[in-house]
Amino acid sequence: MTGRLQPLRERHVLLGHGSGGKMSAELVQSVFLPAFENPILAALNDQAAVSVGGARLALTTDSFVVSPRFFPGGDIGRLAVNGTVNDLAVGGAQPLFLSAAFIVEEGLPVEELRRVAESMAAAAHEAGVQIVTGDTKVVERGAADGLFITTAGVGLIPPGRDLGPHRIRPGDVILVNGPIGDHGVAILTLRHEFDFGLSLASDTAALNGLTEAILSAGGGGVRAMRDPTRGGVAASLNEWAQAAGVQILLDEAQVPVRDEVRAVCELLGIEPYNVANEGKLLVAVAAEVASAVLAAMRAHPLGREAAVVAEVQEGEAGMVFVRTQVGGTRPLEYPSGEQLPRIC
Amino acid sequence: MTGRLQPLRERHVLLGHGSGGKMSAELVQSVFLPAFENPILAALNDQAAVSVGGARLALTTDSFVVSPRFFPGGDIGRLAVNGTVNDLAVGGAQPLFLSAAFIVEEGLPVEELRRVAESMAAAAHEAGVQIVTGDTKVVERGAADGLFITTAGVGLIPPGRDLGPHRIRPGDVILVNGPIGDHGVAILTLRHEFDFGLSLASDTAALNGLTEAILSAGGGGVRAMRDPTRGGVAASLNEWAQAAGVQILLDEAQVPVRDEVRAVCELLGIEPYNVANEGKLLVAVAAEVASAVLAAMRAHPLGREAAVVAEVQEGEAGMVFVRTQVGGTRPLEYPSGEQLPRIC
Repeated sequence: MTGRLQPLRERHVLLGHGSGGKMSAELVQSVFLPAFENPILAALNDQAAVSVGGARLALTTDSFVVSPRFFPGGDIGRLAVNGTVNDLAVGGAQPLFLSAAFIVEEGLPVEELRRVAESMAAAAHEAGVQIVTGDTKVVERGAADGLFITTAGVGLIPPGRDLGPHRIRPGDVILVNGPIGDHGVAILTLRHEFDFGLSLASDTAALNGLTEAILSAGGGGVRAMRDPTRGGVAASLNEWAQAAGVQILLDEAQVPVRDEVRAVCELLGIEPYNVANEGKLLVAVAAEVASAVLAAMRAHPLGREAAVVAEVQEGEAGMVFVRTQVGGTRPLEYPSGEQLPRIC
Repeated sequence: MTGRLQPLRERHVLLGHGSGGKMSAELVQSVFLPAFENPILAALNDQAAVSVGGARLALTTDSFVVSPRFFPGGDIGRLAVNGTVNDLAVGGAQPLFLSAAFIVEEGLPVEELRRVAESMAAAAHEAGVQIVTGDTKVVERGAADGLFITTAGVGLIPPGRDLGPHRIRPGDVILVNGPIGDHGVAILTLRHEFDFGLSLASDTAALNGLTEAILSAGGGGVRAMRDPTRGGVAASLNEWAQAAGVQILLDEAQVPVRDEVRAVCELLGIEPYNVANEGKLLVAVAAEVASAVLAAMRAHPLGREAAVVAEVQEGEAGMVFVRTQVGGTRPLEYPSGEQLPRIC
């Protein structure tokens, strides 16, 4: 079995269609792309690049349905702001303005809504963006689960920046800014009330400072950036491999994973590569700028544990492989189905 | 009792906080404005005007939770596109790009999602906008009611345009482009399975062609535009009266209302002024351009029944009155509480 997409077979929407993995991609390819046909959407980046009045803008949106709404390291509000900031930043844009739309279930404590709003305001302040417009809808009890937030964002793409999987080519290397899997495992641990005596927190963070540092260090040698959220590193690398028509070889020994995350994943039989991150960045760069970019990442508070984790090869186009710690090689599939619903 | 806002007293969010009326405004004033404090949001227009890379942009967002999702004249998808197009257009912006985020309940038929996507695509095509980025989240059965859609939009504000309630002054007149209350009454009729033998349809429409015609005809004499959606004409006029510090006198005899809408409203004891519209426009203009603007509206397919319906007066700042058909005058309150939940 390969990671390649199939036509949608399901007649009803399943949780897996929201996984950020293969089923999500199949839903988008089958339902949304044919309807909204346009070259900007078809590029299927996490942000769209458009020209408005002479300015190059990036636009993005995400809904947040995370459960529970408060967790170690953050909450639904902080996630909503950082997630949208990051989708702009990985497109090379400087995030500027956000909108925030709230769907509230009747009965939600006003105090909780206030806490979420304050958390969003703090996250926006830290990221240097402004929340400038919004909307609130209230639905009757039972018609929503507490609170859903949809943020959209606008950023400015400075002249000359061109990032995206179309620029990835054999010989490039891929870096990550730190340990993977923290967000997903923190939520999972909380939701299932595991008590491992662990202190895991979500990694939610605004990455726009880090992306600017990377672009300063790597210049035109920076090919593409992605924040591996739903579907994890596995989904992002598979999307890159397919979009760029290359093979990617991930070196397991180089991928930072916290011991606690590894332990929970092993216990539950899941791959850290499939787990959502909310403050991690994959960066594909030309080999000649790799060490400069790595140094810039390590000099940034959100990149202290940065590492080169993968190389881009000709090989089998569209495939991702893992070089395991014992020296073998296995395919890293596009995550299929839903392992962690409502992780963000 | 006046229509003035009070501090929020409720400890839990109620349906009325999503009504688009007084309770909605109190929630925003109490929870969101203090947290997201910035002058752009504080203007509380349905769109934010910002400068990006030398271009003046309008940004807006709305969530759509309408029930049922399909109705005479439209569906949740068409509503989501037109609603966001209209929020940009009434700010004097030319709508350009939309994002669309879907929160789907597990089990929704894929075919229904496809119908909604196709309807959005058709509405976007008609309005001349492109849907360029999106997101899909799936929540488990019972955690949402079928499908919620959040659209956000970006438009370009041509140089020299300055619209908003700050420009409304005594002596101005207010026009509407056609009969009010159609959308809300169509949904209500359908939801309650009334059978009046009526053929009421939602008025959902993209108003950007009409707003451009109005701005061409009225130039700088066009003070402000609003699409009276949730909370209806009553909420929009009260917001204008308060924001501009003026009194508004609505002439009941001049307000177009279909006989069927009037009949349903009388039966249910609701005011057509409080009912949501999805293709209506209120325009405040200087008296000297009123006839030119009226003629331009009537020449447009969405303005054939346009009328001058109100005048702006010094009087009692922040108040709206209705001159009734029998010659009396009564206050038109800011709608309080929720009459028609999930109308959009």
